[in-house]
Amino acid sequence: MSDASRPIAILGGAGPAGTGVALRWARAGETVIIGSRDAQRAHNAAIEIKKRVGDQARISGMENAAACAAADILVLTVPFEGQAALLKQLKPAIRPGSILIDATVALAAGVGGRASRTLGVWQGSAAQQAAELVPKGVSVAAAFHNLSAELLNGDDALDCDVIVCSDDPNAAQLTRALANKIPGVRAIDGGKLENARILEQITALLIGLNIRHKGHGGIRITGLPPEAYR
Amino acid sequence: MSDASRPIAILGGAGPAGTGVALRWARAGETVIIGSRDAQRAHNAAIEIKKRVGDQARISGMENAAACAAADILVLTVPFEGQAALLKQLKPAIRPGSILIDATVALAAGVGGRASRTLGVWQGSAAQQAAELVPKGVSVAAAFHNLSAELLNGDDALDCDVIVCSDDPNAAQLTRALANKIPGVRAIDGGKLENARILEQITALLIGLNIRHKGHGGIRITGLPPEAYR
Repeated sequence: MSDASRPIAILGGAGPAGTGVALRWARAGETVIIGSRDAQRAHNAAIEIKKRVGDQARISGMENAAACAAADILVLTVPFEGQAALLKQLKPAIRPGSILIDATVALAAGVGGRASRTLGVWQGSAAQQAAELVPKGVSVAAAFHNLSAELLNGDDALDCDVIVCSDDPNAAQLTRALANKIPGVRAIDGGKLENARILEQITALLIGLNIRHKGHGGIRITGLPPEAYR
Repeated sequence: MSDASRPIAILGGAGPAGTGVALRWARAGETVIIGSRDAQRAHNAAIEIKKRVGDQARISGMENAAACAAADILVLTVPFEGQAALLKQLKPAIRPGSILIDATVALAAGVGGRASRTLGVWQGSAAQQAAELVPKGVSVAAAFHNLSAELLNGDDALDCDVIVCSDDPNAAQLTRALANKIPGVRAIDGGKLENARILEQITALLIGLNIRHKGHGGIRITGLPPEAYR
């Protein structure tokens, strides 16, 4: 499914969630482009990851629109309050047939509230809002909401499942393949994109548990047959 | 906290979720009362459980209002569409100082929709609706939403955590103690009752995963320090 020569552009990728998945995918041999509003910041983040992964790492940094133009697998790791504006701005740069993997969570923290609460999104979820804003023919998958950015930026395997929701089976399969490249992660098909609302809510729950119990919470789904985890 | 001589009344307890927790608590030596609209049905369910647990089991069945009058730990395991009406009916029977543990999930199936979708509840969650309907001075805790009724009714240990949400620390602690009596369950303090909305949504996600993958899904929370699980 995933092809190491096919670049993955991580938009808003210089933040903690973005550098975390970039590090893990660069380690797995994927070609990664960190996108940022600020090309220099993207470049610097890429250099830091290259230092950790080694010279063989295929990672670069560029401005978000340039990153879109250079890849057809796009991963969106921005705070919710920046999501819609960024997608509108990038719309002309997104290549037809691209897959957008959205990890956005509408935390109330974005409007001065708590990170353990979410905002209602008219479309049902941040991922469904993204699906409304991408150019026609671009598929959206929702995933990676529940991975701890701090643990992603570390060196240990994670202890968390990634539930992937999408209306496009190909986008879902590619996203699951990318999830499975992160050590310790098991990907699970979570059905349609509309289910992303629950994945997004779980992040708020985990943030609340992290604050309360001083941890880096994740989730595992139990009780499914082995073939569900793929 | 929990005291085996202090009875637990399971309201709507003749259904699969109710008999499941009744079985597990009866096995753990708790005194359990199954409540049902139909006293005979409650009685029969109690007999079935006694057959499985053995003659030492302290379990009986009675009509819901009588069960309320006989206990001050109440567990509500009814479909959402019956929750408000039952609580209104039982209000005079609920003893002051009781603790109500709500496991209700507002599944869209209750109004002819899908069991993998939820209805919006004005108060934020079914548990918060319950809190509005109980007599003053009765504390509500939300828990047990994510346990598979089928697995609860079996003999094996479960592989699922129970997140407990309540605004009353004593109710939360008692509920966690009851959760920890179910083999394989770890209780986690999930904070305020308002967070119940996320627990309720997770049930819809698990039902969707069960349909898709033919399993009996549960969740484990990873990445918290050991003292979080108690």
